[in-house]
Amino acid sequence: MTDALTVREIGEFGLIARLDAVVRETIGERERIDLGIGDDAAIWLPSPAAASVITTDALVEDVHFRLDWMDWRSLGHKMLAVNLSDIAGMGATPILATITLALTGDERVADLEELYRGAAGLAAPHGIAIAGGDIVRTPGPLTLSVTVVGEGQPLLRRSGARPGDRIVVSGTLGAAAAGLHLLETDDRRRQAATAELLMAAHLRPNPRIALGMLLAREGATAAMDISDGLLGDLPKLLAASGVAASIDAQRVPVLPAVRALFPDAWGDLALRGGEDYELLATVPAGRAGQIIASASTIGATLTEIGEVVPRQDDGALLTLVELDGARRTIPAGAWDHFG
Amino acid sequence: MTDALTVREIGEFGLIARLDAVVRETIGERERIDLGIGDDAAIWLPSPAAASVITTDALVEDVHFRLDWMDWRSLGHKMLAVNLSDIAGMGATPILATITLALTGDERVADLEELYRGAAGLAAPHGIAIAGGDIVRTPGPLTLSVTVVGEGQPLLRRSGARPGDRIVVSGTLGAAAAGLHLLETDDRRRQAATAELLMAAHLRPNPRIALGMLLAREGATAAMDISDGLLGDLPKLLAASGVAASIDAQRVPVLPAVRALFPDAWGDLALRGGEDYELLATVPAGRAGQIIASASTIGATLTEIGEVVPRQDDGALLTLVELDGARRTIPAGAWDHFG
Repeated sequence: MTDALTVREIGEFGLIARLDAVVRETIGERERIDLGIGDDAAIWLPSPAAASVITTDALVEDVHFRLDWMDWRSLGHKMLAVNLSDIAGMGATPILATITLALTGDERVADLEELYRGAAGLAAPHGIAIAGGDIVRTPGPLTLSVTVVGEGQPLLRRSGARPGDRIVVSGTLGAAAAGLHLLETDDRRRQAATAELLMAAHLRPNPRIALGMLLAREGATAAMDISDGLLGDLPKLLAASGVAASIDAQRVPVLPAVRALFPDAWGDLALRGGEDYELLATVPAGRAGQIIASASTIGATLTEIGEVVPRQDDGALLTLVELDGARRTIPAGAWDHFG
Repeated sequence: MTDALTVREIGEFGLIARLDAVVRETIGERERIDLGIGDDAAIWLPSPAAASVITTDALVEDVHFRLDWMDWRSLGHKMLAVNLSDIAGMGATPILATITLALTGDERVADLEELYRGAAGLAAPHGIAIAGGDIVRTPGPLTLSVTVVGEGQPLLRRSGARPGDRIVVSGTLGAAAAGLHLLETDDRRRQAATAELLMAAHLRPNPRIALGMLLAREGATAAMDISDGLLGDLPKLLAASGVAASIDAQRVPVLPAVRALFPDAWGDLALRGGEDYELLATVPAGRAGQIIASASTIGATLTEIGEVVPRQDDGALLTLVELDGARRTIPAGAWDHFG
């Protein structure tokens, strides 16, 4: 019976579609809202000349983080960073953040001050205000919910990729997933000189705000941040744009430390590992070289990993040239938080 | 030792002050942010001609609501209403809401659709968009976090009350607390013809958006919404304004149904009962009559309940003329969610 269907059965994306339908039925479209449920953030127009974006993310203890290997200051950094990364994925400038804490009451005040030091330490160099929020009581677990408002014109959406565009990613992929493995398993690899670097990639990701703004300014056609892994997120961008893509796994940038410490798993870590918070973008073929060069002037690396192609009749979104040279078609569908 | 101090020991307002201090130390003031942690909402300026506000509130199952006596549609209405009430307390126009759900996965999709129908049903007549949010997994309890963005110029703050101003409240007070008692205790009073009305006041409060905008337009000096009861919230407004007040308990508007069903408790319900989501405002003495008359043209009732007076050396914020005519000084300090 449809009525008894649970969230676990329908999955995160099925649920979002159903709730989106309820909203559309009840209140329709709003002319000043440019993008609603489903993208990295919603866009609205405070005036004809300006566009604002809003994004929100929640972190739940023992689901999204573990305090036995994450210090409070890193947690504060990360809860803000994951939201700033969504703003970066739209090419917007973040303006302010609100923080909502659901607490049991047994938390130490000094720990929560560290949490705020982590968030404020990331906000400060970007000129972002931390402006209020809410503190509520919960029997547990600790739940942190952050909302960030940003502005920008033009803004990048997921839906603008066109056949022929080049696909680029920033930085390197797989380091955060490698770092998470080291944090969780406490194996011998943690003695390696590079282990700190990888664990830091998981604990204190660096949102690519300046790069997102550069991509918007220099004519990228679509963008998003990579939180669920390249093969989890690229299909979302392709689906929103109504296109397909071919990417070359050998061109995906991976840190030497990830290859060295995970000789058997580095390919999977790079393609499917989550939480790198790098940017994924499509750029017109004729401008790819110029945009990659511009990025390097602000200290950011962009690597071309493939090309946007027309959607085929078989509906496949993604063709992957594997590390061994084999071509493989990847079906649509991303990682499901309730799967 | 200070380091071991917990949230329960320092209390909600002590914690907010400590976290605010961390933010100020780390990132200082931001020129485009007008109001930070502590008011109903934060204000920022997307352009020199416009001001935007943002507010966020979280509801936790079995702390803020109970599904054994609250239906999902009412819950959806209420989670949005409490945020809209904060926006109303600033005299702003709400534009959009985001909704973050922390779910176990065992929830029924049909129930969550009802939740969204409740929220969208309140959003629609006010022209508010529901624009995205986040869905995350939690082991429980169900946690709902809503953020609303609004706009307006001028906006009302808590800090503008001046000696001589009249103090007004909208609607009636105590109905929501009376309704909560009926919902929780299932006593004989639930058979009364008026019981539904009181329970609805708790389940589906009506945020006073149009009235808030009217108060801002017509020159109210300060305002806020009443969520923690009149004697919980008025001291916050007085403290923010650096003034004191004298109010007359006999003038506080109370529904006949509350007096009839709670003959011994109605005074306490009206003064201390929470969740009415009515507005509390101060208005210049010379304009009080005009503002009360204007409110009536949009179907809103404003009742004058007292006067703002200068702060005395003894630091008392509030003098209350009790129902029996006795004058009593109320010390500062509001209800604490961790108390």
